[in-house]
Amino acid sequence: MTDTIRLHVPENSGFGMSNLPYGVYSVGDGVKRVATRVGDNVVDLAMLLPQEEEVFACEHLNAFMAQGYQRWVQVREAIRSAVGGEVPAAAVHPVSQVKMHLPFVVADYVDFYASENHASNLGRLFRPDNPDPLMPNWKHLPVGYHGRSSTIVVSGVDVVRPCGQRKGPNDPAPVFGPSTRLDIEAEMGFVVGAGNEMGTCIGTDEAEQHLFGAVIFNDWSARDIQAWEYVPLGPNLGKSFASSISPWVVPMLALKQAHCATPVQDPEPLPYLHMEEPWGLDIALEVEWNGEVVSRPPYSTMYWSPAQMLAHTTVNGAATRTGDVFASGTISGPDKNERGAFIELTWGGKEPITVGGQERTFVLDGDTITLRASAPGEGGERIDFGEVTTTIRPATC
Amino acid sequence: MTDTIRLHVPENSGFGMSNLPYGVYSVGDGVKRVATRVGDNVVDLAMLLPQEEEVFACEHLNAFMAQGYQRWVQVREAIRSAVGGEVPAAAVHPVSQVKMHLPFVVADYVDFYASENHASNLGRLFRPDNPDPLMPNWKHLPVGYHGRSSTIVVSGVDVVRPCGQRKGPNDPAPVFGPSTRLDIEAEMGFVVGAGNEMGTCIGTDEAEQHLFGAVIFNDWSARDIQAWEYVPLGPNLGKSFASSISPWVVPMLALKQAHCATPVQDPEPLPYLHMEEPWGLDIALEVEWNGEVVSRPPYSTMYWSPAQMLAHTTVNGAATRTGDVFASGTISGPDKNERGAFIELTWGGKEPITVGGQERTFVLDGDTITLRASAPGEGGERIDFGEVTTTIRPATC
Repeated sequence: MTDTIRLHVPENSGFGMSNLPYGVYSVGDGVKRVATRVGDNVVDLAMLLPQEEEVFACEHLNAFMAQGYQRWVQVREAIRSAVGGEVPAAAVHPVSQVKMHLPFVVADYVDFYASENHASNLGRLFRPDNPDPLMPNWKHLPVGYHGRSSTIVVSGVDVVRPCGQRKGPNDPAPVFGPSTRLDIEAEMGFVVGAGNEMGTCIGTDEAEQHLFGAVIFNDWSARDIQAWEYVPLGPNLGKSFASSISPWVVPMLALKQAHCATPVQDPEPLPYLHMEEPWGLDIALEVEWNGEVVSRPPYSTMYWSPAQMLAHTTVNGAATRTGDVFASGTISGPDKNERGAFIELTWGGKEPITVGGQERTFVLDGDTITLRASAPGEGGERIDFGEVTTTIRPATC
Repeated sequence: MTDTIRLHVPENSGFGMSNLPYGVYSVGDGVKRVATRVGDNVVDLAMLLPQEEEVFACEHLNAFMAQGYQRWVQVREAIRSAVGGEVPAAAVHPVSQVKMHLPFVVADYVDFYASENHASNLGRLFRPDNPDPLMPNWKHLPVGYHGRSSTIVVSGVDVVRPCGQRKGPNDPAPVFGPSTRLDIEAEMGFVVGAGNEMGTCIGTDEAEQHLFGAVIFNDWSARDIQAWEYVPLGPNLGKSFASSISPWVVPMLALKQAHCATPVQDPEPLPYLHMEEPWGLDIALEVEWNGEVVSRPPYSTMYWSPAQMLAHTTVNGAATRTGDVFASGTISGPDKNERGAFIELTWGGKEPITVGGQERTFVLDGDTITLRASAPGEGGERIDFGEVTTTIRPATC
């Protein structure tokens, strides 16, 4: 007989029966396998559901995600049913005793720019001479660009301060060195489970069939490198050195109670961007700088929705694949303490904020940044996304 | 006894003993395997070198490329030696009787903008009010942006005309529909064989150890979609619907005789972009529009070299991986008949050219575009890159 136990969910845990996120864990440096999280435990899914070993005795979620929406529904029900009963004791490990890994192999990664407050703030900072802080296209399409997939890393992986070229407006020539304006961008990332063939497109009403889940996403940004390089083809080295994600992929199926209306989209977008269902998301984020909460960005203020990001990305016939990530762009609310990047919080470094009793603008070596997020779940439960936490190491150039 | 034959290389073939490119073929819809090409035959490499079956009885080149520079040198010598003698008859197929496939799994894809003539021409067309057609950063760093990996397809795959938003300067609002300004960009693509770890960088003098080979690259561009969307974060849907590559990856080891000096780089770039060895490449391209050669772009005029693209991409600590592609950006020489994009050849559509007896500006449905390339090889041989040929199908929106 296998030893079995019953799982306990502490009161107010955000990892109750309405969450059941997916992640990849190992015990020490052992084999990586897929797990869910219940309360303060991870539960090995291949051991919980031996019939699903083929997709869960895996080093990443891709095989499972590729099976598509009907399987996501079916397997989620099976997990929910199984974790509510007796579970094999060997499948259960305290979260504090396991190592969490990058949960999926990243295919293409597109970063959007979906917050009107963020786009307006950056317009004012980067292009102070323009009367309208938003570009003319901004309210007509979700502006986005492709980012680097090879440097998406999981929470807990240190990030080395990037080196690169920068040139102040009065410098005669660019100089090379460690970035002096290292910043965060508090975002959410949406993971494509089932893609589309090249030459086809995905309507906003089909997004649910393709989007598997969501993670917290920190789009590290070297503002000095970015400001010098970004014309006319967009950000490259100012972003490509690292993006950090939380280890738990919260299923879109767990976020049904979190759907809400987006802000009114005026002018009305073209028909392919029209949404029948509310695709905004009531996700509350929290930005912690060396242990102090410095901002609480509200995802519900995002102008463009994940369904619109997916519809826009594929309207030209571009294929998406299992493991594609759409990041939302910095989440900034209208209030100062809701801004999701330090360049906005400190207004380009000109208005320092106090952290740990010191005046601070951008990220220093040794700083630790943690992003957290949560959303409403079924029956009044809270859905916890966990956290993405990163410490900055000194540059090596 | 296995039947053996001797391979014949027709006079003036660009697929002689100094080329020996790598590709992936199948007979009909059979299993995909790695081959080289000698004259007008493909040669199955796992059958030619049974000791290398592990990397050549594969559907793509990634496993072999990942083994690194020393193995590329060693295996190339083994192939050269083997194809010069008796080869198993079963390993040999006429090129006309096989199907060629995408030769490698694409990891990250970065498109550069390395031609001064192209960047200047596009600056004049897209930003006519700017006194300097080049942006201030252009001569200090190889400007580039990440593109979509999922839509890189091989020669012979039709491309569907993309749909999307466009807005003329006098339109009150954007409209949606098939692109009316579908264009090509004649480029070369450089494939990373062996990558670098995140947090490290690759010097220009180490590029040879990392760059495995080169392909012809057609970066399809919908100019109307691109012009509306590209501020401030760069091209996205105007490019992401398709890029087409040639099926044969020509090893960088075959291109040693093609190295030449780049144009003088003035102002002198920062030290991390300095090159000890000449990293320009004397590759001659040819653009054919429905069977008529309309342009002959010279790669030797490219300002930034592939070694500089790699050094720049990694100087911030970004990781590269097996299968990464760096495309050069449109190759345009100083002369009108050396321009590698139709927007330049027809000056934004205002100066049509005659193709098939008709005045033409951008690409129409049913058009076939073929890019070819060749370079000097050892002992006076010519290195042929083959071709990338694509037919445009009507939009489906």
